[in-house]
Amino acid sequence: MEASPALSRIGLAGLAVMGQNLALNIADKGFPISVYNRTTSKVDETVDRANNEGNLPLSGHYNPRDFVLSLQRPRSVIILVKAGSPVDQTIAALSDHMEPGDAIIDGGNEWYENTERRIAQASERGLLYLGMGVSGGEDGARHGPSLMPGGSFQAYSNVEDILKKVAAQVDDGPCVTYIGEGGSGNFVKMVHNGIEYGDMQLISEAYDVLKHVGGLSNSELADIFSEWNRGELESFLIEISADIFKVKDEHGDGELVDKILDKTGMKGTGKWTVQQAAELSVAAPTIAASLDCRYLSGLKEERENAAEVLKEAGLSDGVGLVRSGIDKKKLIEDVRQALYASKICSYAQGMNLLRAKSLEKGWNLNFGELARIWKGGCIIRAVFLDRIKKAYQRNPNLASLLVDPEFAREMVQRQAAWRRVVGLAISAGISTPGMCASLAYFDTYRRARLPANLVQAQRDLFGAHTYERVDRQGAFHTEWTKLARKADAGVGILN
Amino acid sequence: MEASPALSRIGLAGLAVMGQNLALNIADKGFPISVYNRTTSKVDETVDRANNEGNLPLSGHYNPRDFVLSLQRPRSVIILVKAGSPVDQTIAALSDHMEPGDAIIDGGNEWYENTERRIAQASERGLLYLGMGVSGGEDGARHGPSLMPGGSFQAYSNVEDILKKVAAQVDDGPCVTYIGEGGSGNFVKMVHNGIEYGDMQLISEAYDVLKHVGGLSNSELADIFSEWNRGELESFLIEISADIFKVKDEHGDGELVDKILDKTGMKGTGKWTVQQAAELSVAAPTIAASLDCRYLSGLKEERENAAEVLKEAGLSDGVGLVRSGIDKKKLIEDVRQALYASKICSYAQGMNLLRAKSLEKGWNLNFGELARIWKGGCIIRAVFLDRIKKAYQRNPNLASLLVDPEFAREMVQRQAAWRRVVGLAISAGISTPGMCASLAYFDTYRRARLPANLVQAQRDLFGAHTYERVDRQGAFHTEWTKLARKADAGVGILN
Repeated sequence: MEASPALSRIGLAGLAVMGQNLALNIADKGFPISVYNRTTSKVDETVDRANNEGNLPLSGHYNPRDFVLSLQRPRSVIILVKAGSPVDQTIAALSDHMEPGDAIIDGGNEWYENTERRIAQASERGLLYLGMGVSGGEDGARHGPSLMPGGSFQAYSNVEDILKKVAAQVDDGPCVTYIGEGGSGNFVKMVHNGIEYGDMQLISEAYDVLKHVGGLSNSELADIFSEWNRGELESFLIEISADIFKVKDEHGDGELVDKILDKTGMKGTGKWTVQQAAELSVAAPTIAASLDCRYLSGLKEERENAAEVLKEAGLSDGVGLVRSGIDKKKLIEDVRQALYASKICSYAQGMNLLRAKSLEKGWNLNFGELARIWKGGCIIRAVFLDRIKKAYQRNPNLASLLVDPEFAREMVQRQAAWRRVVGLAISAGISTPGMCASLAYFDTYRRARLPANLVQAQRDLFGAHTYERVDRQGAFHTEWTKLARKADAGVGILN
Repeated sequence: MEASPALSRIGLAGLAVMGQNLALNIADKGFPISVYNRTTSKVDETVDRANNEGNLPLSGHYNPRDFVLSLQRPRSVIILVKAGSPVDQTIAALSDHMEPGDAIIDGGNEWYENTERRIAQASERGLLYLGMGVSGGEDGARHGPSLMPGGSFQAYSNVEDILKKVAAQVDDGPCVTYIGEGGSGNFVKMVHNGIEYGDMQLISEAYDVLKHVGGLSNSELADIFSEWNRGELESFLIEISADIFKVKDEHGDGELVDKILDKTGMKGTGKWTVQQAAELSVAAPTIAASLDCRYLSGLKEERENAAEVLKEAGLSDGVGLVRSGIDKKKLIEDVRQALYASKICSYAQGMNLLRAKSLEKGWNLNFGELARIWKGGCIIRAVFLDRIKKAYQRNPNLASLLVDPEFAREMVQRQAAWRRVVGLAISAGISTPGMCASLAYFDTYRRARLPANLVQAQRDLFGAHTYERVDRQGAFHTEWTKLARKADAGVGILN
């Protein structure tokens, strides 16, 4: 197919699953689009889909020059290729034909510093640059993703009308907003993914407790998750979990979920989130626990061996131990509350990571808006995000979701159930690392006085690191060992 | 004081606390040493100390050239300056006067990749290079530290006799061994510090539970920790904790520990450990929890505010809640066991992090030897390390300390007490993030089947990431939503 003589409003290069679907989505919203891919069969495939899905205004191009020249000026080109050097290669191929004022929009899961480097490089040639997080998977890309564009505001303005139509639509608008300068769009998407890891981990723990402590069948689990999806837990991940429990195994009896190997893959954004949290001195234990569980899930053979060794050492496997005296209905309600409370802590960690980075980089992130654009399109979409939006609208400088009066009240209402679930799981030998991490986070953050005084005393003793006092200003150092020996000898200083 | 006409066996540049003490230690062991510092008053100070502490064979030098030329060839120069660019500056100042075959030994807490860069740079000039972790604080440096030298084996061999005399001495030899090539010495020291963070956190949690759930006084705590230090928990950190509880406050009533502000500082090696664990796909939740707690301890004002807000929201502060019906003696014994079991998990994480890095870098680390050289001199020194040494002697390829038959047996014996302590703390609202993280780690690692199957099903549903099955080979993808709708309509595939 030849490029149509009229110029396209926008271009998209990189026609793997995400690229194809996003291009079709843009065309579907009435914006003429040019597409390009190095492997040209992907171009034909996309053109065919555009024709089949309603003769959409999409034109295919087979070399970078034709592709770029088919676009209205100032040009906007979205690229959707693998993060890292493929992005650099694609930029190199396209930018030769672009002119000052044109814009490149990278829609991949890119490390934010790569985007910042490219912004600087692009600006040397007068080009504008956006790093745009895109969430929602294949389906979201085609019918409405959540979009997190950061970088050049001018580049954003040039395509704002398109992005607003293409994004998922929720009650209070399209799921897109200008995130901020530099690599902020990528960073926000990275944290979104970290939160997604946390949500998935917490849901799997709820499933685990209900199945192994409560003895629920897949059919009961499907019903419970469907019911939960009509309440405060309503979200994409709860909804799809309900669906998953329903699917039968085509190769045998029962449901497919039981036949799936318990090893989870990952892509890197979760790891980056945990590393950035450490870098920024932000505690994000729930997100870290979800990453750890993915790592431990991968050690299937080691785990099987450990189960064996510990059995030989005398450990009775608590797993599979359905508690006979258990009040099923109460357990289900407790787990629901534990899941919700744990989730709040995980979001509090993610938002505080964003806050720390925003301060460091001067991004001025609008946390209420971030919660709003996650309400639709993306994997963590949930009604619950509307509450987060409102919390930040009430107080844009909120130190933590946990001290928002409404969330605080919700935590207080749920904490007894939460403690029951985690306590029960611990005694049954069922690991709930995410729920435990959330609860420990809550119980640490809400304590005016921690036992860190002992740690600081130890540091002063062996490293002369000094300490502060609760009752007077200054940095103090004490000869602990000498004074302890005096106390041993009954000659304590003041007694 | 002029340099003595005879050449010194070794040199040391950088005469802050650690440098001064290490230099005096070397001289004390009979090895003539030259010292140098850019700020010359430190040189005089060190020479004075050498004279006062027994007329030790130490000569002071006031410029890099005289200093270097005062050394026997091949020359060995230890530098002990702040990690990062001060090391580069010191190397630049000294290496101009050094000759091929001479060696630089950096004794700071350096990031291992900086050492690897410097090894390459030094080798361009024919110089040898060691990155040597030094643990033990001021006192260790003076009387016997644990030394972790990595890099040029020739450089190590040139000073092996000195290091073996200078290091702490334990029953099975001096606390030094050649660690491996490249930055392995720094990396091992970094993980040592991560483990140290974990130990300190776990001890502070034991203290917290005993104080707030058990109602123990500082005097009782001092007795308990002294008693623990005569059993399997015997270690430097337990010993100094006992001492800390004894020290009276010279500014008022009671013990000083209660007047110390609950904010802990940190230096960076703990953060690196957590980031490297994520990088290497190794779960290290206990070490991560200890880092998080240092971060959260720093948010003193936020915590005070959170305590207030949650109180207003109706949360009764469980803290300070001494359980009336508590069996103090049983609690103390349970906490002891919980601390020991939690500690094993933390060390398992640290050793597995070392194992992963050793494989990545081809360092061939000898884990039994690492445990051995930590038995004395360093902050984590403990009798317990001898068991770790033996576990790796029994099986150098041990997948985890948790599956060593002896440790497995110890875990099984302690797990009931451990679960009781964590459960009690959770119901009392006392956070034990480290103990929780260790227990969740244990309960995850020892489970042949985890709920990760649900996570992988979710990933396949929204991202077509595919999954494996427990009963047949291959990668599978399922149209979950479509099949769930069919199931809803009562037309499940096989039923």
